[in-house]
Amino acid sequence: MTKIDLNSDLGEAFGPWRMGDDKAILDVVTSANIACGGHAGDPATMVETLALASERGVVAGAHPGFADREGFGRRLIPLSIREVEQLVATQTGALMGAAALAGARIRYIKPHGALANWAADERPVADAIIRATRAVSPELAILAISGTELEHAARNAGMTVFSEIFADRGYLSTGRLVPRNLPGAMIDDPAEAAARLIGYLSSGLMPTVDGVPIPLDAHSICVHGDSPGALAMAVHVRRELQKAGIEVGPFLQPTQENR
Amino acid sequence: MTKIDLNSDLGEAFGPWRMGDDKAILDVVTSANIACGGHAGDPATMVETLALASERGVVAGAHPGFADREGFGRRLIPLSIREVEQLVATQTGALMGAAALAGARIRYIKPHGALANWAADERPVADAIIRATRAVSPELAILAISGTELEHAARNAGMTVFSEIFADRGYLSTGRLVPRNLPGAMIDDPAEAAARLIGYLSSGLMPTVDGVPIPLDAHSICVHGDSPGALAMAVHVRRELQKAGIEVGPFLQPTQENR
Amino acid sequence: MTKIDLNSDLGEAFGPWRMGDDKAILDVVTSANIACGGHAGDPATMVETLALASERGVVAGAHPGFADREGFGRRLIPLSIREVEQLVATQTGALMGAAALAGARIRYIKPHGALANWAADERPVADAIIRATRAVSPELAILAISGTELEHAARNAGMTVFSEIFADRGYLSTGRLVPRNLPGAMIDDPAEAAARLIGYLSSGLMPTVDGVPIPLDAHSICVHGDSPGALAMAVHVRRELQKAGIEVGPFLQPTQENR
Amino acid sequence: MTKIDLNSDLGEAFGPWRMGDDKAILDVVTSANIACGGHAGDPATMVETLALASERGVVAGAHPGFADREGFGRRLIPLSIREVEQLVATQTGALMGAAALAGARIRYIKPHGALANWAADERPVADAIIRATRAVSPELAILAISGTELEHAARNAGMTVFSEIFADRGYLSTGRLVPRNLPGAMIDDPAEAAARLIGYLSSGLMPTVDGVPIPLDAHSICVHGDSPGALAMAVHVRRELQKAGIEVGPFLQPTQENR
Repeated sequence: MTKIDLNSDLGEAFGPWRMGDDKAILDVVTSANIACGGHAGDPATMVETLALASERGVVAGAHPGFADREGFGRRLIPLSIREVEQLVATQTGALMGAAALAGARIRYIKPHGALANWAADERPVADAIIRATRAVSPELAILAISGTELEHAARNAGMTVFSEIFADRGYLSTGRLVPRNLPGAMIDDPAEAAARLIGYLSSGLMPTVDGVPIPLDAHSICVHGDSPGALAMAVHVRRELQKAGIEVGPFLQPTQENR
Repeated sequence: MTKIDLNSDLGEAFGPWRMGDDKAILDVVTSANIACGGHAGDPATMVETLALASERGVVAGAHPGFADREGFGRRLIPLSIREVEQLVATQTGALMGAAALAGARIRYIKPHGALANWAADERPVADAIIRATRAVSPELAILAISGTELEHAARNAGMTVFSEIFADRGYLSTGRLVPRNLPGAMIDDPAEAAARLIGYLSSGLMPTVDGVPIPLDAHSICVHGDSPGALAMAVHVRRELQKAGIEVGPFLQPTQENR
Repeated sequence: MTKIDLNSDLGEAFGPWRMGDDKAILDVVTSANIACGGHAGDPATMVETLALASERGVVAGAHPGFADREGFGRRLIPLSIREVEQLVATQTGALMGAAALAGARIRYIKPHGALANWAADERPVADAIIRATRAVSPELAILAISGTELEHAARNAGMTVFSEIFADRGYLSTGRLVPRNLPGAMIDDPAEAAARLIGYLSSGLMPTVDGVPIPLDAHSICVHGDSPGALAMAVHVRRELQKAGIEVGPFLQPTQENR
Repeated sequence: MTKIDLNSDLGEAFGPWRMGDDKAILDVVTSANIACGGHAGDPATMVETLALASERGVVAGAHPGFADREGFGRRLIPLSIREVEQLVATQTGALMGAAALAGARIRYIKPHGALANWAADERPVADAIIRATRAVSPELAILAISGTELEHAARNAGMTVFSEIFADRGYLSTGRLVPRNLPGAMIDDPAEAAARLIGYLSSGLMPTVDGVPIPLDAHSICVHGDSPGALAMAVHVRRELQKAGIEVGPFLQPTQENR
């Protein structure tokens, strides 16, 4: 494991409101999960974020979420399975329309927030996301949280699937994240986060809060840019990975449109 | 002129609210302009309307409009030219995503309401719609109101362009519609509407309220299904056209996905 | 029990979309639960519905619901308790602003859809609705489904509380409604509905699907106007009640502004 | 003129998105124009902003705007005059509901953005805002841009009306603001802004870009807190006014609920 991708959620502005510093984080990551106008994003933000990613050779993915801006896609909206398919297909399509205008290309899908959590736990939701993705384009890959139902569903469907771990989150021995309300859930210190990731990438074993380190499969590390502290951690992690001889690069080869 | 298309605006429900009887009007028309979630429509409505059209062999087009549900896209929202492009690209993309899920295909674009009126009068707006359409897919055609800037812009760009006239509207000698607040604007009698259209299709000349009949170019007649009266007119017009030996058929050949 | 109120949900249009025939149902009911711009309604609809109710002497109440138009307030949005208070206070305030313009007056609150169901089962949610209602105006009453936590919470807080039963729904021996997916949930026949209500109003006992008739406390019967069938049932029920010598009148005396 | 109010637009967050530093600007101003859920704001933001203002003794006003979040109320939405009334009544009502929950009180109305500009120029729009305000509560005052139709309409209606000038904008000899695209429109230097305001408050005469200083009537200075630079200017202006012996205080006496 001498190569790893860095991904982050981007294009989460809406109308007059900003969310984080997209330009700064685009200089750190190699893959960008871009909001599709559901939980965040609007036509201008979608097109402009895709153009910024494309200029930097950052690979672009769709980041669909519940159409609940007030809750930022973090509240579970009890859709039917059919509605999950429809949400993913239309939001991904909208971003593909934006990409066409920006001269960019959408390469993968990573669901957002409460939709991602739902798809992590519930196979029918995961399967719905897979069906919609494949219907929209057979060339799209999936970026899933390591060890989730979404990862299994994608693999089972024969899709190209990449898995991610989090720079700033602790792990349980089950391979799942420590819930946010428990000790060890968040890693706030950039040095600790970087050391931990380097250890993991060297050994393939991730430390856990409740047992021995466990093997985890990961092609990408999720970092954040929505606060100055998060951005600083992302910058630090990238630098330390590179110092440790780990290549930082996208899990998918940038195409003409991604450059 | 022994063949003509009938088109109507469809998929204009939103959440719990219906707009007209889509199934009934789909049995009358040969092309369907489907709302894209801007002025109307939601993911479920988009997918279901496309499936209904596809089952009947009705050719599907995108019907983008201002993202102003409360005003149903009938209020002019002063977007920048760049924002017009972004709106058209993302809304059309969203409908294409829905079409992928429904096993349907989007073949053309017809703007809605205040956006259509703006594009009829202002060449830069028309050009923006054309640019966005071509970016999203070079295979898309344009359906424009006969004699408008949008028609000219599309033709100038070398696009496939079809023009439409209205079953229920009177014309001025300039070739434009009689404004709704003037006498002769609306034709309410189905028999009058049908006779007038048959006359036009036989002669190529459209009666005007302020002068002699004028030559008009049209590939399609726009009918409505959003009220029982409108639907009855559409049914009557179709029947009378066929009785008069005029073939009613789509301006674009249905593909596998449109059947 | 020789007097009963009839209530219905009204003002549930949005922008270009209608929901039921508000004028027709306003000629049937004596209390109107009016949407506040959350699950349905917009400023014009709120003001106009209040004016129509006021003209007919129908007492007006606020009908707050989750701010989820696409789901019509029927999907549970997991708000915090504090957010429930804020939702109820601002939606009721909005309707009171509309009432001021319409020359009407808001007299009570009845929550809508998934919010009502949540408040029926969960006392903290019920208490939040009560706190918000009392903060907005100590003169507001509560209209609650008979036997729910909301009814208990309102009574416990010393508020004026009225309880409702449904014209078209079957009851369990627990006093709760038969869930919609079980046999006996819906009563579709107007004659059966009317006979059942007259029986209940004469005896105080409501038939149940799973046992003997049970005592139920009710000041109002909820009827619907959102479909021709529902409206016909409401008209029939009112007529039969009156024929049986039961007075149909509001649970609150109309004020000057409610006339 | 030894006393002046400072006002600013507040509560312009939405869901997950922030707009400026409300707490910091609340330590500078004496009156707060609070968004009502139209162009910005949501129930939580309304209640929390009112509570913050109330804690600091800052007088609260309603800041209604077009219900166009994506355009932040800065795009003219062509409402009818009746719709303007309905918008103002329902948005003000919503904020009054929030105030009831926050233990605060709404004392005045200042329209936002494109609605304010429309009301500045068009008397029927100004009159509609006045009618809605008076309907909602006869105790509400108006805060209007000095010299506008809104100021005249409010005065003509016998309302309590206060007028404002801008800390960071240049004036024409007509008394109106220099349009943003012309030289002299913006004053970026805090020292210049403060000196200019002190000069105006001492003399009653405001410098103009195209002529001699003109007399202007003002009870309040509008400052901004939506960027670090704007906040710094507001802090500087307040300090310099006080150094110059000018009392900074609200134009309306804080009530129990405003403290």
